[in-house]
Amino acid sequence: MGKNLTKRSEDYSKWYNELVLKADLAENSGVRGCMVIKPYGYAIWEKMQAQLDKMFKETGHQNAYFPIFIPKSYLSKEASHVEGFAKECAVVTHYRLKNAEDGSGIVVDETAKLEEELIVRPTSETIIWDTYRKWIQSYRDLPLLINQWANVVRWEMRTRLFLRTTEFLWQEGHTAHAEKQEAIEEAELILGIYAAFAEEYMAVPVIKGTKTASERFAGAVETYCIEALMQDGKALQAGTSHFLGQNFAKAFEVKFANREGVQDYVWATSWGVSTRLMGALIMTHSDDNGLVLPPKLAPIQVVIVPIYKGLDQREAITERVTPLIKELRAKGISVKYDDRDTHKPGFKFNEYELKGVPLRLAVGQRDLENGTFEVARRDTLEKETVQAADIIPRIETLLEEIQQHIFSKAEAFRESHITRVDSYQEFKSVLEAKGGFLLAHWDGTPETEEKIKDETKATIRCIPLQPGTEAGKCMVSGKPSPYRVLFAKAY
Amino acid sequence: MGKNLTKRSEDYSKWYNELVLKADLAENSGVRGCMVIKPYGYAIWEKMQAQLDKMFKETGHQNAYFPIFIPKSYLSKEASHVEGFAKECAVVTHYRLKNAEDGSGIVVDETAKLEEELIVRPTSETIIWDTYRKWIQSYRDLPLLINQWANVVRWEMRTRLFLRTTEFLWQEGHTAHAEKQEAIEEAELILGIYAAFAEEYMAVPVIKGTKTASERFAGAVETYCIEALMQDGKALQAGTSHFLGQNFAKAFEVKFANREGVQDYVWATSWGVSTRLMGALIMTHSDDNGLVLPPKLAPIQVVIVPIYKGLDQREAITERVTPLIKELRAKGISVKYDDRDTHKPGFKFNEYELKGVPLRLAVGQRDLENGTFEVARRDTLEKETVQAADIIPRIETLLEEIQQHIFSKAEAFRESHITRVDSYQEFKSVLEAKGGFLLAHWDGTPETEEKIKDETKATIRCIPLQPGTEAGKCMVSGKPSPYRVLFAKAY
Repeated sequence: MGKNLTKRSEDYSKWYNELVLKADLAENSGVRGCMVIKPYGYAIWEKMQAQLDKMFKETGHQNAYFPIFIPKSYLSKEASHVEGFAKECAVVTHYRLKNAEDGSGIVVDETAKLEEELIVRPTSETIIWDTYRKWIQSYRDLPLLINQWANVVRWEMRTRLFLRTTEFLWQEGHTAHAEKQEAIEEAELILGIYAAFAEEYMAVPVIKGTKTASERFAGAVETYCIEALMQDGKALQAGTSHFLGQNFAKAFEVKFANREGVQDYVWATSWGVSTRLMGALIMTHSDDNGLVLPPKLAPIQVVIVPIYKGLDQREAITERVTPLIKELRAKGISVKYDDRDTHKPGFKFNEYELKGVPLRLAVGQRDLENGTFEVARRDTLEKETVQAADIIPRIETLLEEIQQHIFSKAEAFRESHITRVDSYQEFKSVLEAKGGFLLAHWDGTPETEEKIKDETKATIRCIPLQPGTEAGKCMVSGKPSPYRVLFAKAY
Repeated sequence: MGKNLTKRSEDYSKWYNELVLKADLAENSGVRGCMVIKPYGYAIWEKMQAQLDKMFKETGHQNAYFPIFIPKSYLSKEASHVEGFAKECAVVTHYRLKNAEDGSGIVVDETAKLEEELIVRPTSETIIWDTYRKWIQSYRDLPLLINQWANVVRWEMRTRLFLRTTEFLWQEGHTAHAEKQEAIEEAELILGIYAAFAEEYMAVPVIKGTKTASERFAGAVETYCIEALMQDGKALQAGTSHFLGQNFAKAFEVKFANREGVQDYVWATSWGVSTRLMGALIMTHSDDNGLVLPPKLAPIQVVIVPIYKGLDQREAITERVTPLIKELRAKGISVKYDDRDTHKPGFKFNEYELKGVPLRLAVGQRDLENGTFEVARRDTLEKETVQAADIIPRIETLLEEIQQHIFSKAEAFRESHITRVDSYQEFKSVLEAKGGFLLAHWDGTPETEEKIKDETKATIRCIPLQPGTEAGKCMVSGKPSPYRVLFAKAY
């Protein structure tokens, strides 16, 4: 089997779409904009979920579940939130179907119209703060540190698998605090968790920062984000954490008695990452041969392929590898032994390269005789021969090396694609010729931001958390600027 | 704090509703029929999920994710399925809201009407089989053993927390097979997993059986089920597994080439358990003091409450219990140390009784002096004094004993509430006076089944898998009956 994968250099976008399909990660469904996440793709998402869930729980968060539907009126309660979220959404208007009188099939029963329409949640701040009003009376009820794993729906006009889909899976944290400072620290704590997860598990280097006012979450006072860089030089927002101030508490009348017995509005955060992370993972590491997965998130970390003539040889190989498989599994390493007789080794090699399995072991007749394994790593495609006695520690070392190596490689790429520019002309030419992140001075006004976006399609990805202190002049207006901000074209 | 819980003997239904609220398991939301699952309730559900997921994976199943929306036309493709599921459901008709022209708020944008309405999935056979058509060409693609964890919506008129809600959480397995017999075995395998999970983890004894034709899943050839008995003598269906024959394959044109190269329709199963299991768990074991949880599913297995005067004494107790907590956690036992100074021990005792924590350790000044712990078990409310040296093995033993004891207790109750009746008169009087399961002869016709249901509200819960061979005469019609079937009033 050839992989027949378009090269990244030919058409990056086509390469991505083909890879998602060919690696069995996801596909489009019969419902516009909604994807089917296939078992192999879902297994990666499950590994992401498990690690994030652990990190949330270690920092005191609990999971809960809130309704999928939001009454239309709830969305209107927070003024800027409704502008951001009540527009392109799935609206439930009826609760019954019936057989058509002309026998043509089933039709909506017009007598079963809802008094108030329900919106399929695009995000859950409103329904959750409507609930928190009942849960919070006193400072003793705070903080409330809650997360939910859920599906959400945003009626996107142009969709792409994982990156932008009408329905997607995510986690959304919603916390309530007695003190403003505590809520800000919570938003920052979560940003740190997201960054650590991206870098240590996904092996995706990220830049932490805050959004400009115009890019903020609808209803937030401050939006923190992590931004990653894809191989085509475009940025991808990988997670956001919002300090919501008292906006939702005021909209939903959530007050508490503080230690002095005085009533005050509750301070809030919300934060989320979604199946979009799958897109970031795929686009950061993969190559023209297919997926490259970080060992920590790979559903199969090691695949073993027997190379044999005749079933006797296969049996001898199976006997040889069975104790190895057992030992590896006991160490928590996931191993697949692919002894299918319906496919040739070359076909299997291709398949596991396409699927990004970090390590491939091949065992043939000569390996049996010599007591060796051929080990191939997916990231570098390098092969080596390893003695049986050394194989387990070597596998452990290689898995760590691959995890580290793909992070370093992505980091080096990212570093070589951060350009400091001082004029708008330079900005435009670098953006055009090289892409990537651009660090430039900006006067802090939405007008200039908008002008740059309109003229170049680049947006301010974030104001880096450590922006440096180098003051300068806005590359567009020439007005003073306290520090450089990070621009890029983005997904 | 008094628990103020209605007694089961006074009003079982009220007791249940109060318990769900007071034990912080779930509550009603602002959306009709949709519940909020609170952190403590969700933690139990997560434990259920983790164990079921493990059992599914150990038997070769993989998780995936399919869209929440189902195009209306899909529901019509399987004739009996549409009758069962396309009626009371949430119908999405529009994809946009807009600001009302009169400034009165937001309204549905009538220009954004969907060409074809979308149904929020009540179950996913149709969308999944529409997908399977693309995945299955040959017997080599089979079996396909897929599960998804998801939310579903059925527009119920009368709802009760966990037992019947408009939205609920569940898992739905959907498998595809080359052989009829293999599909039947899959449905039976899953029934076995459900029964083992109910009995070994939930400590809820169940009866395995098949549904009568009129109680079958819409689109199934055979529906297998597990039936549990609640303390009020009503049955609760705890899980179902369906052999779907080739019905969905035919409806969605899913054919495969068999080993002989001949095209045939694929054989199917589907199966699910839901957050309804929470209702079964609560109603099987709990008492007038609150929840009783099986240790294997309890979010907190052991709570330690210090009894002290002054913070010095509390500190001495904390020092004493810290190594114990560490050791218990290292053994995988979840422990909570409640040293809140804002609440009295009596309040805490009540709270953990209400929440069903299996074991409570109290440590006071005298225990410090004597090197002892007071251990109270939730199921029997018995207390004992345990020497520090024996405490860890004693806790381990007690957790096992509680798990076993509540199962045995529920089983004894169930056994004492299975009555063999031979006349319709006896049937009615036993049903009225005692409730529970009734084993009776039935002539196998839907007419008799319907008559019994209309006259007594009892339904055939199942035809037990081991029905015995004792032939007899239908208690209503007098016609021959090959074996007794299981009747009850049900949730």
